[in-house]
Amino acid sequence: MRIEGSWIIEKHTDNVLYLYRVKNHIYHGKTPFQEVSLVELEAFGKTLFLDGKIQSSQIDEAVYHEALVHPAMVTHPNPKKVLIMGGGEGATLREVLRYPVERAVMVDIDEQLVKLCEAYMPEWHRGAFYDERAELVFTDARAYIENSKETFDVIISDLTEPIEGGLSVMLFTEEFYKKVYGRLSEDGILVVQSASADIYYSNFVANVYTTLKQVFPIVKVYHAYITSFQLDWAFTFASKKYDPEEVDEEAIKNKISKFENELKFYTPQIHGALFKLPKYLKENIERNGRVIRDERPEIWQS
Amino acid sequence: MRIEGSWIIEKHTDNVLYLYRVKNHIYHGKTPFQEVSLVELEAFGKTLFLDGKIQSSQIDEAVYHEALVHPAMVTHPNPKKVLIMGGGEGATLREVLRYPVERAVMVDIDEQLVKLCEAYMPEWHRGAFYDERAELVFTDARAYIENSKETFDVIISDLTEPIEGGLSVMLFTEEFYKKVYGRLSEDGILVVQSASADIYYSNFVANVYTTLKQVFPIVKVYHAYITSFQLDWAFTFASKKYDPEEVDEEAIKNKISKFENELKFYTPQIHGALFKLPKYLKENIERNGRVIRDERPEIWQS
Amino acid sequence: MRIEGSWIIEKHTDNVLYLYRVKNHIYHGKTPFQEVSLVELEAFGKTLFLDGKIQSSQIDEAVYHEALVHPAMVTHPNPKKVLIMGGGEGATLREVLRYPVERAVMVDIDEQLVKLCEAYMPEWHRGAFYDERAELVFTDARAYIENSKETFDVIISDLTEPIEGGLSVMLFTEEFYKKVYGRLSEDGILVVQSASADIYYSNFVANVYTTLKQVFPIVKVYHAYITSFQLDWAFTFASKKYDPEEVDEEAIKNKISKFENELKFYTPQIHGALFKLPKYLKENIERNGRVIRDERPEIWQS
Amino acid sequence: MRIEGSWIIEKHTDNVLYLYRVKNHIYHGKTPFQEVSLVELEAFGKTLFLDGKIQSSQIDEAVYHEALVHPAMVTHPNPKKVLIMGGGEGATLREVLRYPVERAVMVDIDEQLVKLCEAYMPEWHRGAFYDERAELVFTDARAYIENSKETFDVIISDLTEPIEGGLSVMLFTEEFYKKVYGRLSEDGILVVQSASADIYYSNFVANVYTTLKQVFPIVKVYHAYITSFQLDWAFTFASKKYDPEEVDEEAIKNKISKFENELKFYTPQIHGALFKLPKYLKENIERNGRVIRDERPEIWQS
Repeated sequence: MRIEGSWIIEKHTDNVLYLYRVKNHIYHGKTPFQEVSLVELEAFGKTLFLDGKIQSSQIDEAVYHEALVHPAMVTHPNPKKVLIMGGGEGATLREVLRYPVERAVMVDIDEQLVKLCEAYMPEWHRGAFYDERAELVFTDARAYIENSKETFDVIISDLTEPIEGGLSVMLFTEEFYKKVYGRLSEDGILVVQSASADIYYSNFVANVYTTLKQVFPIVKVYHAYITSFQLDWAFTFASKKYDPEEVDEEAIKNKISKFENELKFYTPQIHGALFKLPKYLKENIERNGRVIRDERPEIWQS
Repeated sequence: MRIEGSWIIEKHTDNVLYLYRVKNHIYHGKTPFQEVSLVELEAFGKTLFLDGKIQSSQIDEAVYHEALVHPAMVTHPNPKKVLIMGGGEGATLREVLRYPVERAVMVDIDEQLVKLCEAYMPEWHRGAFYDERAELVFTDARAYIENSKETFDVIISDLTEPIEGGLSVMLFTEEFYKKVYGRLSEDGILVVQSASADIYYSNFVANVYTTLKQVFPIVKVYHAYITSFQLDWAFTFASKKYDPEEVDEEAIKNKISKFENELKFYTPQIHGALFKLPKYLKENIERNGRVIRDERPEIWQS
Repeated sequence: MRIEGSWIIEKHTDNVLYLYRVKNHIYHGKTPFQEVSLVELEAFGKTLFLDGKIQSSQIDEAVYHEALVHPAMVTHPNPKKVLIMGGGEGATLREVLRYPVERAVMVDIDEQLVKLCEAYMPEWHRGAFYDERAELVFTDARAYIENSKETFDVIISDLTEPIEGGLSVMLFTEEFYKKVYGRLSEDGILVVQSASADIYYSNFVANVYTTLKQVFPIVKVYHAYITSFQLDWAFTFASKKYDPEEVDEEAIKNKISKFENELKFYTPQIHGALFKLPKYLKENIERNGRVIRDERPEIWQS
Repeated sequence: MRIEGSWIIEKHTDNVLYLYRVKNHIYHGKTPFQEVSLVELEAFGKTLFLDGKIQSSQIDEAVYHEALVHPAMVTHPNPKKVLIMGGGEGATLREVLRYPVERAVMVDIDEQLVKLCEAYMPEWHRGAFYDERAELVFTDARAYIENSKETFDVIISDLTEPIEGGLSVMLFTEEFYKKVYGRLSEDGILVVQSASADIYYSNFVANVYTTLKQVFPIVKVYHAYITSFQLDWAFTFASKKYDPEEVDEEAIKNKISKFENELKFYTPQIHGALFKLPKYLKENIERNGRVIRDERPEIWQS
């Protein structure tokens, strides 16, 4: 192989590094909130790095965003109002808008990032930002939740991991989730991207799971492998009323029939399988979690 | 972080490299067949590299070996004789011997590697090599299959990927699988480790799947995420009679009850979920495979 | 340290790699002749890579170009006409034009590269391209030498190493040097950048030295450390009449007095010291060289 | 090239990393004072790393040790007693013992390191440890200097760079050098390995130079390129009486005639050239240094 040339190094952990060969440098800069690199990787196509970590790549952004959005959207019988916290690229919004919702609010603190995504990453949003049902709000998600009176059927937490000094530290605590609970309709559902489900990292998802259990009657972790993260990824499903494992395949099939052809990952058959966890993960979330509170928020260690 | 020190580089593809920090160098040498490095990685613990690629690491060898062995062993109603092709570390054998089999034959071409694993990797074999029911044969798996008259209830293909000039090139072809078919009992099952199920690599599993479809009436791909491979991994299940998706949870629970506590990955609940594939993988194996034949064997490209 | 982010890897040899952190990507593309990357490195400032190898960096381009040009220019008593072979960045030309020459011809095969350097690297040429005494010719240096009738007092070979299939392969042979000899005035001087003087690589300079010894009466190797090459670098001085070690410090002082303040590396005192070689290098060039001929040109191995 | 396999990463600076391919891991461990790795590199042969930085490699240890020892030993007319501070590998001692000295004391704080070098690196000491004239003392060099009454003709400071919290921090200060001055005979010479002479790092040597100027009447910096450091390296020569640039070639030739054949770097001719500095280095040491004092010792930054 030819080793020479331009690479990006990503720190998976202190003990595992990834090197990606760069085909093309598209954008590099800093917003008021984070460092943004948009490059075309030979391996994954166009790829967004925030603060040095891959957020989303062309090869498999659909996998992540479908896994994040569809289980909640098909479990709720009739989601009309949806709130997305984070989700800068616009792809979470795109997946939500496939459904006949009336209103989808996306709250992201980093307006400049969203503008960059709008301009440079049309493959992600595909026009979702211009949908009449969509509203974009540029503020801190916690402030939005605390100040809003509106209720939503589905709330999607599409936030970055809570790194030390980062934007998301106060968005994974019991106190916050209680406020989110208050902004959900009576049969509302919250889904939280919960970082790696890997043997390594699974304490984070264990803590998110344990924390949500304090607030919601039905809490389940599900998982999907994300190529460009090179990790099995966890999502936590928290629900006031509906159990995602009780939705049958036929019902899902009907709900997604209009756009099923456009999906790359999610199918009616895989829905239930996502909730079946490897034994090590199942045991870990059941045994090793702690309740995350404002006074001692969770900091992501990598 | 401290970047200085000893690392191993693994070439994931020409465009993605992995760097693993090494805690301890245990063994490095060449057998007549392959280059062997056994190291202790900070991230994964004791880890075996063959020809520069991770084969197995302490942190998750159980995930791979349980995923490889148990679906077949619980699907067959009463496996008495089992053949393992490859499997040098002895962990596949270890998982097989958890069942009340009468005889388990392991055929590996590389005697020196097996001896190294025996001496340096007791965490893998855990004495399986010394079980009275086990027989070790050091020869080429194809020669063994061609010369044997014995039949087996379950045959497990635990071979390295067929790299150019490598040992496994002629062990993934239709001609070979026909001979394997002949060495299976009337209701026998073959399971083939089929490399990455990733968006990238899935052509390999598509080809293995398509090839096995020429030979067996029931062929299904299943998948599991393997931490130390940093990939979703594919296995192909080929069966004369039994469908792995028709085994019920209760039956599995009974079959594994004696050793269930010792397992790290496999559960009765996850069994069925393994066979639910992401849409991209499902479509790929159904559409993009070719039949691998001796005259044009499959060469693994990374 | 923070390892994340954008790096360039340079292959020093198959066994030694360099990683440079990139601050800014300025230009990347291909001319008809070579791959060009212009980046700003954190360590070296603006840096030009050709075919993956550092050619010149802001931090120390003066060292290389002064070491290449001044020993010949001060040794010749009155250089009026100077020819530069290669030298795309324009910095060799810049150093030549410090002297009261009448005419300086620069022959570089890669017009597009020269245009890129003109536009993006003004710190190198500093207007030299626009000096009335300068002429730029875009053609192969060998063709130029063979077709020209003009003679020069000093000829400077500022060519890339002769890599397999590269542009410079036929520009380091005895046959070529004989033609160069014919294009020099009766007391003319040729200086040849001769790549690394390192223990590793010194066979190349030994071969250049041995080849020039077939053609010129006075041939001497000199050396200087180049930061951004991270190597001691060799130059071969070939002369019809003048010995560079017989020039005295006072004479040099006079010749460079008008621009001495602008120099970063070269001084009257260091002139003689450049020609004093480490014993290993001296012995190597005297013992281990071969005559490079057209029928078996030298190929640079790294 | 084949990228897979075992490498050592060395941090040249935060912005430049070196990767060396490892052929063989010989020893890795920690002494009470430092982390020791002894490996065989493909590029440099057997190589010693201390705290992650190359100290010495087989390919060119002779260059470093000859450059450190011979200029002082030939400048002093009759060195009988020599003190080495540091010098664990025994190669500095080896070079000293080539001369007809009566006594050579080597003071190194790290006995375990010296024992490792003795056992694993015979190519360095070549029996010097067993020479009757040699005495090894395992203690801190400053304590030794402060407690000793003995005087020496030549003292050689072969210490590691003073990294934060490291062993050498208090061994580069004016107060210390004054004490060293007191342990030198009336015409004694001190030579100090002074780290990189590179454009980058030259502040360190400027500070050592400026500090020694407070204490000694004659202070000169000299330099030599060290392959395995991939840097031009500085040494500071501090003398009570003799000027190294006044030693003539013929005198040197006589002094080294008995062992000249065994040297790899040093020659009578190169002696004077070592003291001719690139202009940037000359200006830097004259202009930019500070006096290093105990109250604010110099810390090496890389």
